[in-house]
Amino acid sequence: MNLAGNDMILALDFGGTKHTAGLARRGERTWLRTAREIAPEHATADDDLEIMLRLARGLLAGERPGITGVSFGGPVDFYSGTVRLSHHVPGWENRPLAQMLRETFGAPAWVDNDANVAAIGEHMFGAGQGSDSLLYMTVSTGVGGGWILNGRPWRGQDRMAGEIGHMVVDPSGPVCVCGSRGCVERLASGTNIARRAREWLREQPERGARLRALAGGNMELVDAKMVAEAAAQGDALAWEALERGAQALGVGIGNAANLVNPQRFVLGGGVTKSGEGWWAAVRAAARATALPEVEVNIVPAALGDEAPLWGAVALAVGSEAQVEQA
Amino acid sequence: MNLAGNDMILALDFGGTKHTAGLARRGERTWLRTAREIAPEHATADDDLEIMLRLARGLLAGERPGITGVSFGGPVDFYSGTVRLSHHVPGWENRPLAQMLRETFGAPAWVDNDANVAAIGEHMFGAGQGSDSLLYMTVSTGVGGGWILNGRPWRGQDRMAGEIGHMVVDPSGPVCVCGSRGCVERLASGTNIARRAREWLREQPERGARLRALAGGNMELVDAKMVAEAAAQGDALAWEALERGAQALGVGIGNAANLVNPQRFVLGGGVTKSGEGWWAAVRAAARATALPEVEVNIVPAALGDEAPLWGAVALAVGSEAQVEQA
Repeated sequence: MNLAGNDMILALDFGGTKHTAGLARRGERTWLRTAREIAPEHATADDDLEIMLRLARGLLAGERPGITGVSFGGPVDFYSGTVRLSHHVPGWENRPLAQMLRETFGAPAWVDNDANVAAIGEHMFGAGQGSDSLLYMTVSTGVGGGWILNGRPWRGQDRMAGEIGHMVVDPSGPVCVCGSRGCVERLASGTNIARRAREWLREQPERGARLRALAGGNMELVDAKMVAEAAAQGDALAWEALERGAQALGVGIGNAANLVNPQRFVLGGGVTKSGEGWWAAVRAAARATALPEVEVNIVPAALGDEAPLWGAVALAVGSEAQVEQA
Repeated sequence: MNLAGNDMILALDFGGTKHTAGLARRGERTWLRTAREIAPEHATADDDLEIMLRLARGLLAGERPGITGVSFGGPVDFYSGTVRLSHHVPGWENRPLAQMLRETFGAPAWVDNDANVAAIGEHMFGAGQGSDSLLYMTVSTGVGGGWILNGRPWRGQDRMAGEIGHMVVDPSGPVCVCGSRGCVERLASGTNIARRAREWLREQPERGARLRALAGGNMELVDAKMVAEAAAQGDALAWEALERGAQALGVGIGNAANLVNPQRFVLGGGVTKSGEGWWAAVRAAARATALPEVEVNIVPAALGDEAPLWGAVALAVGSEAQVEQA
């Protein structure tokens, strides 16, 4: 039931630190227009919404979108279109975002969390094309994930499926914010790679010369990107800190492969830019953990920085198709 | 396309040590007839088949089944109907069992591995009724599992989905036959509960008096059932050996809940008869491992010893329905 001349898709990405909007025509893979704005410090949900509506209205220039898709950086109940909360911005608790957007723009709107949206985007437009089942994982400040099974998003009973970041892989490991010890995120995220490297630099004053140099002697500046750079330059401490994360991630992927046996694992997020050594360590640990009969196919995400927006397009197009089927 | 008068379902269970066949009418939940035969020692695949065909022909008494469902105790490629191998009986490698049965009985036949069949059976007739997504797990000499997602079996790319037994939950744990350390099966199966108890009895001669008494002083006789009995009688060593298994299983379930977030976990197999303490320990570890937002609903299997045969009925009925849809 597309209205004539109304084949435009509005895509919105509520990120933790910036908001982005894009407008595309159905079937096309280039943007008509995009707009972006950094979120102010101490923003509230109302601020976020005001910014986003302004960006969207600017793109639409008085027209109406045919459908709207939204990536939200926090837990969302897709089926009701309600944001549960934001871990960064107060005031998002139980906001019926999809309904609000439907009323504002007079068009169907769908909202999902950023990991599910990226999974849907990679499946439709990126590294998941041609695959019927995949786990998308983002390895960034945290570790999150989203499933495609039987060619469609799998969200789970409580819309919590895909939380591979909080799979326990080492019960004697360090305590995570989730309360468990040694979960994948606590060992493999960028934040935790950097944290481990800083701890080791303090404990082992004779090691990590390259990493110390990159940080200009100020260990507090060490981040995961710096650890990867130092590792690439041959710094053994940096490599070990990076490799520990890759290893834990690989065990998590191998476990997920045994449990669900998807066709593909698609990995995105800043930590995946840590170089070939990191990828090799992830793949080796996953291969060693999975049963011999289980194929483990791990590939880099293809959409890069545009994953949330193209994912939002894919979410809208795919959800509309499912509504029409039902 | 049921032929008139041909509403009979033939259900076959190729077990490790015994073979069972049952005949039921569509829509009914009692057997018309069943038959069972213990497999001889050193049997081959040909022996297994000969026994099963004899049992089936006895039940059918010259009639033709409408459809046939088969539970096989080993890896199966459901889509081609081919047995990959049996871990117990030689000669099963790549046998096209479904095709053979179709030709023998002149009726559609479907074959799947015992964990998937039990999952399908519990979903249709047992503890999974009314649930759209579940992981069935058997905790017995080994630990296996099978998925129902979106109301249908989920088998995975290599038909290996459900292998929660080989999820690594303690990388510093003991080495499993699968090659990994500290996987769920190596810690939680009946075989390994008994093995751990025997090791501890040897290492700690002052402990385990109740368990030693139950074994008549012969530690080699200690099995998982005996460990559970001694634990119920207050034997601390036996309880700790049992609890270690329950704990590892619970971590595996919690990890699976975070990753896939199904509505229900259905647990069958001999170890699940280890008493309320075991169930409480499994539930506590699963709850502690899963994220707070993830509900973890763990229930006992309902079909008991008849799970493989009723599961085979459910496999045949469900597969036929899916063929008709497609």
